[in-house]
Amino acid sequence: MTILERHDTGAIAHLKMNAPERMNALSDEMLAALQDQIDALRDDPTIRAVILSGAGKAFCAGHDIKQMTAGRQNEDGGRAYFQSLFARCTSVMMGLQSLPQPVIAQVHGIATAAGCQLVASCDLAIAAEGTRFGVNGVNIGLFCSTPMVALSRNIPRKPAFELLTTGHFVEADRAVELGLLNRAVPADQLVDETRHLAETIASKLGAAVKIGKQAFYEQLQMPMDQAYAYTSDVIVENLLYRDTIEGMAAFVDKRKPDWDQG
Amino acid sequence: MTILERHDTGAIAHLKMNAPERMNALSDEMLAALQDQIDALRDDPTIRAVILSGAGKAFCAGHDIKQMTAGRQNEDGGRAYFQSLFARCTSVMMGLQSLPQPVIAQVHGIATAAGCQLVASCDLAIAAEGTRFGVNGVNIGLFCSTPMVALSRNIPRKPAFELLTTGHFVEADRAVELGLLNRAVPADQLVDETRHLAETIASKLGAAVKIGKQAFYEQLQMPMDQAYAYTSDVIVENLLYRDTIEGMAAFVDKRKPDWDQG
Amino acid sequence: MTILERHDTGAIAHLKMNAPERMNALSDEMLAALQDQIDALRDDPTIRAVILSGAGKAFCAGHDIKQMTAGRQNEDGGRAYFQSLFARCTSVMMGLQSLPQPVIAQVHGIATAAGCQLVASCDLAIAAEGTRFGVNGVNIGLFCSTPMVALSRNIPRKPAFELLTTGHFVEADRAVELGLLNRAVPADQLVDETRHLAETIASKLGAAVKIGKQAFYEQLQMPMDQAYAYTSDVIVENLLYRDTIEGMAAFVDKRKPDWDQG
Repeated sequence: MTILERHDTGAIAHLKMNAPERMNALSDEMLAALQDQIDALRDDPTIRAVILSGAGKAFCAGHDIKQMTAGRQNEDGGRAYFQSLFARCTSVMMGLQSLPQPVIAQVHGIATAAGCQLVASCDLAIAAEGTRFGVNGVNIGLFCSTPMVALSRNIPRKPAFELLTTGHFVEADRAVELGLLNRAVPADQLVDETRHLAETIASKLGAAVKIGKQAFYEQLQMPMDQAYAYTSDVIVENLLYRDTIEGMAAFVDKRKPDWDQG
Repeated sequence: MTILERHDTGAIAHLKMNAPERMNALSDEMLAALQDQIDALRDDPTIRAVILSGAGKAFCAGHDIKQMTAGRQNEDGGRAYFQSLFARCTSVMMGLQSLPQPVIAQVHGIATAAGCQLVASCDLAIAAEGTRFGVNGVNIGLFCSTPMVALSRNIPRKPAFELLTTGHFVEADRAVELGLLNRAVPADQLVDETRHLAETIASKLGAAVKIGKQAFYEQLQMPMDQAYAYTSDVIVENLLYRDTIEGMAAFVDKRKPDWDQG
Repeated sequence: MTILERHDTGAIAHLKMNAPERMNALSDEMLAALQDQIDALRDDPTIRAVILSGAGKAFCAGHDIKQMTAGRQNEDGGRAYFQSLFARCTSVMMGLQSLPQPVIAQVHGIATAAGCQLVASCDLAIAAEGTRFGVNGVNIGLFCSTPMVALSRNIPRKPAFELLTTGHFVEADRAVELGLLNRAVPADQLVDETRHLAETIASKLGAAVKIGKQAFYEQLQMPMDQAYAYTSDVIVENLLYRDTIEGMAAFVDKRKPDWDQG
């Protein structure tokens, strides 16, 4: 049994966090396993979409508090360990966004603190109805400062601030309204809905999705004129791909494209 | 018959894209006509609001794929033409925002790819119920990288990413929830509702709306302290306009202002 | 009778604007009183949450138009006074965000122009159902350029632009949808709901909320990689607080934390 299972089906890689007895906490081991898979997926041209889910009752309950508490036994009270921990956690969270393939969170049960950050860091997210979301570190005196970076780039300020300072939870339906989720579905449809979304994306031209995903996050951080200059270069490159030439010709001819891909 | 009709009613200019057989595609000719009108409107003090609509079954279906495909016959495979095309397209999209007058998209039927970008680039948008919106270039292998710039500044990240990578459509009601539209109305009320919104804005002091519209987009791209320093200068200038002095005096005296304008 | 009442209950400071005959307009006197309280609260470790409300029929109707009009009698037509006024107003608005304690707007009746800016500038806001919100300076020829800074960082672009250019109002339910409010409640529950939210936040570790609130606004203005580097430093510092060490140990031991605070 591995802490992070990977099953590939066609062009879809499914990563399942598998530490259900710890609610898939982001322990040192889990973070290392996630980083390994991110590194492996980055250069894997056969994979065009990724699903991330959790085994057991919860998607992910955040950092491993027991392991962090143990880290305090070091001479420096844990400072160096904590610095390393959050550097590794950030690498995983930003790694999900820097992957060429879209990553879909398939969420059930509960997603709290860094587990909620994981949902916010995926490109897309579908949850079972009733799933609960929170950034509740404040309840034990630890403000969710790093989860806040991803959360506050997904949902408006006032509801984000409320979640962070009250430790309260929202259910999936409200998370859809806020923008944290793409949608909520009945629990027994969660796997099929997520799979269907992944298959839809995997059916597209991977090279176009790759260049587009990267540009999505890059241009969001630019002033509008720079964003247009940059994405104009991106779309011109995209236009010159052999498969895009074929895709557009097929569209004009009203036939299916004959892509080299897959 | 011109490719872009303009009818002025009082202080309102109504631009209607008129290439219904091509679903008002943003061909070289359409982009040139839009740019000409933007240039003409920029310095026209008699116009205080602009409506943009499309003739036929659709608002706008995006770029002209046939024309783009023809551009590939050039020696460079179309690179120079595409670079020019997206520079001209960007000039139109940013031109709508840089116009002193608010621009309202009056949308019906369908708005896809650069047609959806056009909606996102207008300051305001009203659509007929059932109108469909998408950034579906990915379906033919061409990621909507430039439409994404405008779209991702109108709606939250996760639904934007889904639209871009799946090529799926959303209907007007959902587009309102997401922030892409101000509202959706029954099809037979679309013209009246848009006209009414334009008239409301045209009834305001044009100089105040002009200085405010420009500041709106400028300050959005600034850190908050700079945004306040800048808009404080803007509002002090606004306060010293003759018509604003009169407007405030009239408010204190509980009478209608006697504005020089119009 | 003072223009700004303050009543403390435990760790909660309640500021009530008290110029009901002027709808709590942000006159020179009101701004000075708000600034004084902000300065007093900044270094008051006994206060962990702040409520801001208004006496009478309205929360706040914005700037004091009569006082501003009187300012025009100066030799410079009021320019220097207006510059000073907006510098002082900005100091109050940004001061609310820079306070270490979360500030909750308790809103009823009406919140217009700089009164709406006040709501947008608080970290959290609850309103009585039916409360009306607007940035309607455009109706008298004065575009709400400074209120726009706060408003456009709370709600999406298109509805913000509509409010600013039409002078129209939205009611509390719509303001919740847009993100300007955390929630709307029946008028007879407004005081209790706001008090309950303040008490929830005041029950948390003040040092964690303080470091978190500051980081919230700082990181929002950073590119994502800088935001993570910064918040990683913040959370490591937070982890080394004596009370956080105790909070996490208590969580592991499944007991209540024994915090020094309060």
